Amino acid sequence: MTDTTTLISFFTETREFTERLCKPLEIEDYVVQPIVDVSPPKWHLGHTTWFFEEFILKKYKPDYRVFHEDFAFVFNSYYESVGKRVIRNDRGNLSRPGVAKVYDYRHYVTSELKEYLQDAESSPELESLLEIGIHHEKQHQELLITDIKYILGHNPLLPKYNEKFEEHGPEKHEQHWIDIPEGIYEIGHDADSFCYDNELGRHKVFLHDFEISSKLVTNGEFMEFIEAGGYNQFDLWHAEAWDWLQQQAVSQPMYWHKIEDKWYHFTLNGLVLVNRDSPLTHISYFEAFAFAQWKGCRLPTEFEWEVAAQEFEWGKRWEWTESAYLPYPGYQKPAGAIGEYNGKFMVNQKVLRGSSVATPSNHSRKTYRNFFQTNLRWQYTGIRLAR
Amino acid sequence: MTDTTTLISFFTETREFTERLCKPLEIEDYVVQPIVDVSPPKWHLGHTTWFFEEFILKKYKPDYRVFHEDFAFVFNSYYESVGKRVIRNDRGNLSRPGVAKVYDYRHYVTSELKEYLQDAESSPELESLLEIGIHHEKQHQELLITDIKYILGHNPLLPKYNEKFEEHGPEKHEQHWIDIPEGIYEIGHDADSFCYDNELGRHKVFLHDFEISSKLVTNGEFMEFIEAGGYNQFDLWHAEAWDWLQQQAVSQPMYWHKIEDKWYHFTLNGLVLVNRDSPLTHISYFEAFAFAQWKGCRLPTEFEWEVAAQEFEWGKRWEWTESAYLPYPGYQKPAGAIGEYNGKFMVNQKVLRGSSVATPSNHSRKTYRNFFQTNLRWQYTGIRLAR
Amino acid sequence: MTDTTTLISFFTETREFTERLCKPLEIEDYVVQPIVDVSPPKWHLGHTTWFFEEFILKKYKPDYRVFHEDFAFVFNSYYESVGKRVIRNDRGNLSRPGVAKVYDYRHYVTSELKEYLQDAESSPELESLLEIGIHHEKQHQELLITDIKYILGHNPLLPKYNEKFEEHGPEKHEQHWIDIPEGIYEIGHDADSFCYDNELGRHKVFLHDFEISSKLVTNGEFMEFIEAGGYNQFDLWHAEAWDWLQQQAVSQPMYWHKIEDKWYHFTLNGLVLVNRDSPLTHISYFEAFAFAQWKGCRLPTEFEWEVAAQEFEWGKRWEWTESAYLPYPGYQKPAGAIGEYNGKFMVNQKVLRGSSVATPSNHSRKTYRNFFQTNLRWQYTGIRLAR
Amino acid sequence: MTDTTTLISFFTETREFTERLCKPLEIEDYVVQPIVDVSPPKWHLGHTTWFFEEFILKKYKPDYRVFHEDFAFVFNSYYESVGKRVIRNDRGNLSRPGVAKVYDYRHYVTSELKEYLQDAESSPELESLLEIGIHHEKQHQELLITDIKYILGHNPLLPKYNEKFEEHGPEKHEQHWIDIPEGIYEIGHDADSFCYDNELGRHKVFLHDFEISSKLVTNGEFMEFIEAGGYNQFDLWHAEAWDWLQQQAVSQPMYWHKIEDKWYHFTLNGLVLVNRDSPLTHISYFEAFAFAQWKGCRLPTEFEWEVAAQEFEWGKRWEWTESAYLPYPGYQKPAGAIGEYNGKFMVNQKVLRGSSVATPSNHSRKTYRNFFQTNLRWQYTGIRLAR
Repeated sequence: MTDTTTLISFFTETREFTERLCKPLEIEDYVVQPIVDVSPPKWHLGHTTWFFEEFILKKYKPDYRVFHEDFAFVFNSYYESVGKRVIRNDRGNLSRPGVAKVYDYRHYVTSELKEYLQDAESSPELESLLEIGIHHEKQHQELLITDIKYILGHNPLLPKYNEKFEEHGPEKHEQHWIDIPEGIYEIGHDADSFCYDNELGRHKVFLHDFEISSKLVTNGEFMEFIEAGGYNQFDLWHAEAWDWLQQQAVSQPMYWHKIEDKWYHFTLNGLVLVNRDSPLTHISYFEAFAFAQWKGCRLPTEFEWEVAAQEFEWGKRWEWTESAYLPYPGYQKPAGAIGEYNGKFMVNQKVLRGSSVATPSNHSRKTYRNFFQTNLRWQYTGIRLAR
Repeated sequence: MTDTTTLISFFTETREFTERLCKPLEIEDYVVQPIVDVSPPKWHLGHTTWFFEEFILKKYKPDYRVFHEDFAFVFNSYYESVGKRVIRNDRGNLSRPGVAKVYDYRHYVTSELKEYLQDAESSPELESLLEIGIHHEKQHQELLITDIKYILGHNPLLPKYNEKFEEHGPEKHEQHWIDIPEGIYEIGHDADSFCYDNELGRHKVFLHDFEISSKLVTNGEFMEFIEAGGYNQFDLWHAEAWDWLQQQAVSQPMYWHKIEDKWYHFTLNGLVLVNRDSPLTHISYFEAFAFAQWKGCRLPTEFEWEVAAQEFEWGKRWEWTESAYLPYPGYQKPAGAIGEYNGKFMVNQKVLRGSSVATPSNHSRKTYRNFFQTNLRWQYTGIRLAR
Repeated sequence: MTDTTTLISFFTETREFTERLCKPLEIEDYVVQPIVDVSPPKWHLGHTTWFFEEFILKKYKPDYRVFHEDFAFVFNSYYESVGKRVIRNDRGNLSRPGVAKVYDYRHYVTSELKEYLQDAESSPELESLLEIGIHHEKQHQELLITDIKYILGHNPLLPKYNEKFEEHGPEKHEQHWIDIPEGIYEIGHDADSFCYDNELGRHKVFLHDFEISSKLVTNGEFMEFIEAGGYNQFDLWHAEAWDWLQQQAVSQPMYWHKIEDKWYHFTLNGLVLVNRDSPLTHISYFEAFAFAQWKGCRLPTEFEWEVAAQEFEWGKRWEWTESAYLPYPGYQKPAGAIGEYNGKFMVNQKVLRGSSVATPSNHSRKTYRNFFQTNLRWQYTGIRLAR
Repeated sequence: MTDTTTLISFFTETREFTERLCKPLEIEDYVVQPIVDVSPPKWHLGHTTWFFEEFILKKYKPDYRVFHEDFAFVFNSYYESVGKRVIRNDRGNLSRPGVAKVYDYRHYVTSELKEYLQDAESSPELESLLEIGIHHEKQHQELLITDIKYILGHNPLLPKYNEKFEEHGPEKHEQHWIDIPEGIYEIGHDADSFCYDNELGRHKVFLHDFEISSKLVTNGEFMEFIEAGGYNQFDLWHAEAWDWLQQQAVSQPMYWHKIEDKWYHFTLNGLVLVNRDSPLTHISYFEAFAFAQWKGCRLPTEFEWEVAAQEFEWGKRWEWTESAYLPYPGYQKPAGAIGEYNGKFMVNQKVLRGSSVATPSNHSRKTYRNFFQTNLRWQYTGIRLAR
């Protein structure tokens, strides 16, 4: 029974926190989708709600009445097993349901689910679905922030989100290299607490000696890379990266602007001077790799990172690793729609480890595996060197 | 002085009417741009305002203070001569300026301009610019309606605009063929009243005998075309049309839906049964041409239409003609930015004559030349046959 | 009987001339298709042959045995009514049938058709098909030359076709303006001799007074346009042209190269200095229009051209007109596959009048209507100004 | 000195063997490039020659005269460090240099290099470059065969290459599962013999227990997958694979055709019935993965494959592994253009192990790492299951 109470309050806080994140928005900000990877905020609000309705209320709550029969269609993201969905690049073309209606939907589902949980007999299956739903919403909290940043940061008026969101505090400690001796190490989640399926299957890996930096790469170090012509030296780049660079005319991190010979970047507090001491962010894997090459270093693998993580502070930037996103030995995709959560993305993406300034509390751990395509930059990504 | 008073009241009514058209919208509806040809309603509100600010207030009003220095950039449409502009397919990615701010902008410019007009000494040049600005806004009133229809009609929830907008009243009279004898006719605007530059240069054309229908093609006639397999007979179509048909999988007018073997169409009042007697609409030139071929008829030229127009009722549909949009003999593109209004579109488009249910009052005349690319269907387009 | 003999010899000469045009080619040159508009020479050889096989031999010759059952599929161009076809942009991917086999096909069909014609009873229908087939092949002779030029001229080795082909002889006479008085004129073919369906339907047009140049625009005049920044002045260009210019980075006629501050152009005799006195060629309609704007002139309509053509020399360049390619009043598309020859292209193209240095003898006349999309430049196109 | 003699004869044989592979071709077959991944055979002939000219003759042979100054431009593939190059998808647009000229180029370079080698003082650097050049040419021998197959197999006439090339001999032994115990294993090349840079850096990995099949997946097994609807079950596929499947309409291995309810495939000997017992080929990684999922198995990692390879026969198919193509620990990209050979492709590709029926002798070993994008199918790829 304590468990249920805890879960209900965890659920309630999560639902409220999502809405709090949207407080600074104008209604218009909820609607747009400037690129396919960035979803409209109201879609995030609806989609996280739909998840609870589709996977819990519809299945478990007796006599549950769906809020609106077309919403499953509008707010499904990529779950092929639960019917048709609005294709991803049409999300920003939908003015309805309006923001007020989406909040109604949220509140209806939140309240129906709380009502149900108070009375329902708890079961491991239900608890597990609820936990996934909550963590799923936390993931979207992070995306909400980065998508809002994209929406505001690509508007010619460069409007602020608020005055308080702290993106760029420097790491105060000195950089040094941490030595990790060669040996067999255990990788993967091994506690009772929540984790995603992709962290399971604890297993052994052999690692050779390596060194890993105690500190993230700073803006100042990356400015040196730019000044040294790093974006123009093809031999630092993968062939695919070089093509991407040419086609997209990339020559600086996302959100950087050079104005009268000074570097500024757009932050959630508006346009500010780049601080040389703060950790670099908004770079793609391609750029992370090229920078490491230029330094005569390399990116760590995800296993090296996980083994060394207790030796350094982390949590400001999602850190690109050299590891491709692949299943652990013995990985089993869960049956049904929940099985579409992770497994089907395990190709042509890179693992990121750590967490970022946008990650909600309780949503990071040493074994957490984030993943993105190699050209994406709108997350708070960063670089930690190894050698 | 009467003139000025008349113009001011014409201006005021036009400004108000635009805003009245937007009354039924939710804020979210103002923001989206589902396809490149459809602009967000708030963009129309801003762009028509910018026109007055850019071409009158900034040039004529002493000490005029621009409302916001970035708005010229946001709300310029295609005037290359007045600086950079947001590229057309990015309009729907801008959540700011918000709707309230855009209305502030409108009211500021409306009031500044009225103030200026009350005091200013009238001049032909000023009157002419004001008239163009007003007619420009009237054109956008029509686009507002058709763009709103597109935004709502391509939303899976199919929301209504209002209950009253009458799109589909049938023409009550019987069809007959009107004979026009061969001869030399005069074409083009010849009154003192306002017209666009593309109507000027009244000139002679020789027309051979022809017959033109007294009535627009009806939905029922077009259903027969569909049932006869018209969309599958390549010899009715231009080669370019046939490619378009295949690629876009077109097999019915825009907004038509077949539900349980009955044809419905989306209207501004919601989804309703197609009325066989009402004039067909939302077809491309390609479809208009193919239908005419199938009937053993043809589309009239714009000259035939203009000559015959006093013999029939028109005004419900913009009517596709066989004429390419070209300059009249002696056409002179006006100097400066205003010269970009019409001339630069005179290639690879077709002329439409008449006007539509969405055309505001005072904005149609026999000599008016509308024009669109041959594949576009979101206007209230229709067919009148000739032979 | 004389008629038949004449036709047979006309046929024979045409078939031989096509092959003579290919003499300078290496086998490899017959195969490639660098852009979709340019067909491989062996495709031209096969397609003109297929035309005679498909429309005459298969229908008329008793017991005719098709050369190869798959060739209809390979060599059909766009005739939807005669079955499937290799899509146009795959022509250059076919190494087989090889060149030798295509010549076998040609010789087989030539000889079968001659055999048939010697014995067959002549009929107007047969004669008409034969005439069309011959003129069809003559059209492809012209395309052969321009396609070969494209293939060689876009090869980094810039190989010559031969030493003799004369593309660029200057017009020796002085330029003057020819006055044509206003009045009603007759347009269209009115002789017994061969013409295409699109020239038929002789009809009247009214023309206002105009002047037309006695001489084509020269390379020297166009250099002045370039030097005056004509390619950078958006107000000279159509909106669609301006987009094309930016995207394709066009800043000179096709085949022009600036080497050490001098203009060269690639010709069928190799790379040579541009002669200022020779008539300009390889420009699109977009460029022709912009040049005329810059000169304060305009392009003639096709009717003006046809009326004035007896007053000036023509035949070196296809001349862009301002006229869209449209059916004449009373135009009837012939039934069946032959009906696909012209009518289905009558949208979004411009008429060119005259003929070019690549046009075979007997294949030009005052009433001939050529047509291309407004961005195409690989034909020997030119400019004659009107005002 | 023996070494030099051996190398010269290895070089000579390799050069001759490449030309022997092209014997069955018609000249036209040398020219075309039906998709960007497939190069024209004459390009392979020229490119492998250019490699020796660029990296050996130009650098080492005194007074060497380049065969043709533009050939470096034409035949460079992707070496950014040695100047401009014809972009990859333009290779099939070049009719010149013709085939005869390319053979002249080959013979010139072969003979110049032999002359040089006979006299030159041997050095490790020279020997190493020569070895790379020879192995580079062997790689292209394999691509020659698969590219020729593509060119012929996508021609509607389906011409044969020859009668003898054996693609599809079945593996005669029974399938069984080979057990490999968990432990630390050494990976990577450790002999004196030639290998590529990507095989170097012998290092340790820890492997958990696994089983690997003694036999490749057969056509018959894959037919069962097709019949069971494997291509329609989204949960067997990666998300990216599922999109690819829909867009490309993939529902069978490349070169398979269903004719009157029987499966045929195109082979270098022409179209033949699929033999159920032969090893499957021409499938993408996406299909290999989905098949393994359907079987309740998985693909081996490249490390598992390398450790187990002495326990089974291999060499008919390149075998897809689950491993992303990444550098080994301590991998160093060689300096200069040779460094562009492998390292820059180490992102978003999968490793294949083994070799295929198209692999020349002396060009396979247990440690060899081949790599392709996950959607490619024109190589002789196959599947070996693990679990």
